[in-house]
Amino acid sequence: ATLTLDDARTVIAAAEQKATEIGQPMNIAVVDGGGNLVAHVRMDGAWIGSIDIAINKAWTSRAFDLATRDLAENAQPNQQFYGIHASNGGKVMIFAGGIPLSRDGAVVGAVGVSGGTGEQDQAVAEAGAGAF
Amino acid sequence: ATLTLDDARTVIAAAEQKATEIGQPMNIAVVDGGGNLVAHVRMDGAWIGSIDIAINKAWTSRAFDLATRDLAENAQPNQQFYGIHASNGGKVMIFAGGIPLSRDGAVVGAVGVSGGTGEQDQAVAEAGAGAF
Amino acid sequence: ATLTLDDARTVIAAAEQKATEIGQPMNIAVVDGGGNLVAHVRMDGAWIGSIDIAINKAWTSRAFDLATRDLAENAQPNQQFYGIHASNGGKVMIFAGGIPLSRDGAVVGAVGVSGGTGEQDQAVAEAGAGAF
Amino acid sequence: ATLTLDDARTVIAAAEQKATEIGQPMNIAVVDGGGNLVAHVRMDGAWIGSIDIAINKAWTSRAFDLATRDLAENAQPNQQFYGIHASNGGKVMIFAGGIPLSRDGAVVGAVGVSGGTGEQDQAVAEAGAGAF
Repeated sequence: ATLTLDDARTVIAAAEQKATEIGQPMNIAVVDGGGNLVAHVRMDGAWIGSIDIAINKAWTSRAFDLATRDLAENAQPNQQFYGIHASNGGKVMIFAGGIPLSRDGAVVGAVGVSGGTGEQDQAVAEAGAGAF
Repeated sequence: ATLTLDDARTVIAAAEQKATEIGQPMNIAVVDGGGNLVAHVRMDGAWIGSIDIAINKAWTSRAFDLATRDLAENAQPNQQFYGIHASNGGKVMIFAGGIPLSRDGAVVGAVGVSGGTGEQDQAVAEAGAGAF
Repeated sequence: ATLTLDDARTVIAAAEQKATEIGQPMNIAVVDGGGNLVAHVRMDGAWIGSIDIAINKAWTSRAFDLATRDLAENAQPNQQFYGIHASNGGKVMIFAGGIPLSRDGAVVGAVGVSGGTGEQDQAVAEAGAGAF
Repeated sequence: ATLTLDDARTVIAAAEQKATEIGQPMNIAVVDGGGNLVAHVRMDGAWIGSIDIAINKAWTSRAFDLATRDLAENAQPNQQFYGIHASNGGKVMIFAGGIPLSRDGAVVGAVGVSGGTGEQDQAVAEAGAGAF
């Protein structure tokens, strides 16, 4: 029950294909069960400001074992986790695009995507996670 | 399709003239296509707290290829990029004053302005970008 | 004269093959001309402490257009750049494993490798750079 | 007894001319009496890793009212200020290229130069300071 570089490449390939289909270049990152980066790619033309965001969406998803989209709801003003984005040295990303990767019922990593709208990031991350 | 120090000086000169016209001293910064600083000036009397903001508005505009004013809308609570200001080590500026600089259809840098109201910063940045 | 994701993958594949040959798993990273990450892989079993080092060796090589091994000599106590490792927020790596990538006589990026001895990191980075 | 943007431009112009003479593009920065950035330029082709170094050499020179070259001697292993480069969030630069700017007997700012050898940086900084 672990995540290998081969796994990361499978996830990234599927995400990349989806990004190409929707015509939006993306940053795609995969972390392992320790939240540590396994692989990252920036597609040609993708935002340089999204490198950090993709990597940290993946980290956040594994750090809390949830989709960053779901964290978003609880991290808005007046909600129970408002302010969490300031924790962990600013690594907590609270918007859509990070999804946990599970195997045998356990989260063993996560994928993070950044480079488009929240909907696009989410769709590309789902395509990646679906290939795992 | 690149941005030189001469280009940066042209942008800064136009921005500076606008700032003088409206009577508000400003920090003005220009970054290149990699988001790296090419030139910065702080006009006499401009806020020292705006040095970092001007430089990072320019960085943000290039990092996401958009005007920071437009990013602002999507970065408010309950919007799709709420929390993005915590990413990239706190370099993402989500209020008006940063504008991409394009040449031959490609973004090759950006200008960032800080020192007045959002409207003033935007007007000065537009004057700078207009000279490019 | 630029560096694409395909280029980065070519460099990483050659570096990875060399790492496999010498039996030492590595972190391998490629940055573009702006010093921004294009791709990163951590081979199975490679040190997690080397993720940051590989990425920052690549950054350093592009930031100063030299091999990090050569910077090392000048960054020792009593040498002309002693203390440079504290600059740039701690991103300057002053030991072997980072090599610039040039095209048409201009540096357009760099590769950074970390995970073994200095000699091993250097050999793997050279294999990567050689494929560019 | 203060330092204006006009002063900073005079210093930068003289430094730039010297850098052109010796054929080495440089980052040149000027800070005021508060150690805060007044102006910065990166000459075409100058290292992107030297942006931070030039700005912080200027800061360091004003922060301690001395040339960074002189600080270097005391900051080596076994000397009285060894370790000072780790203070102030890594902003203390302990190698040649930063020089205080004085007026009427008081230090009112500093110039910092980075982009070549220690000797070149020092020569360009001296040319800049000489014009003040």
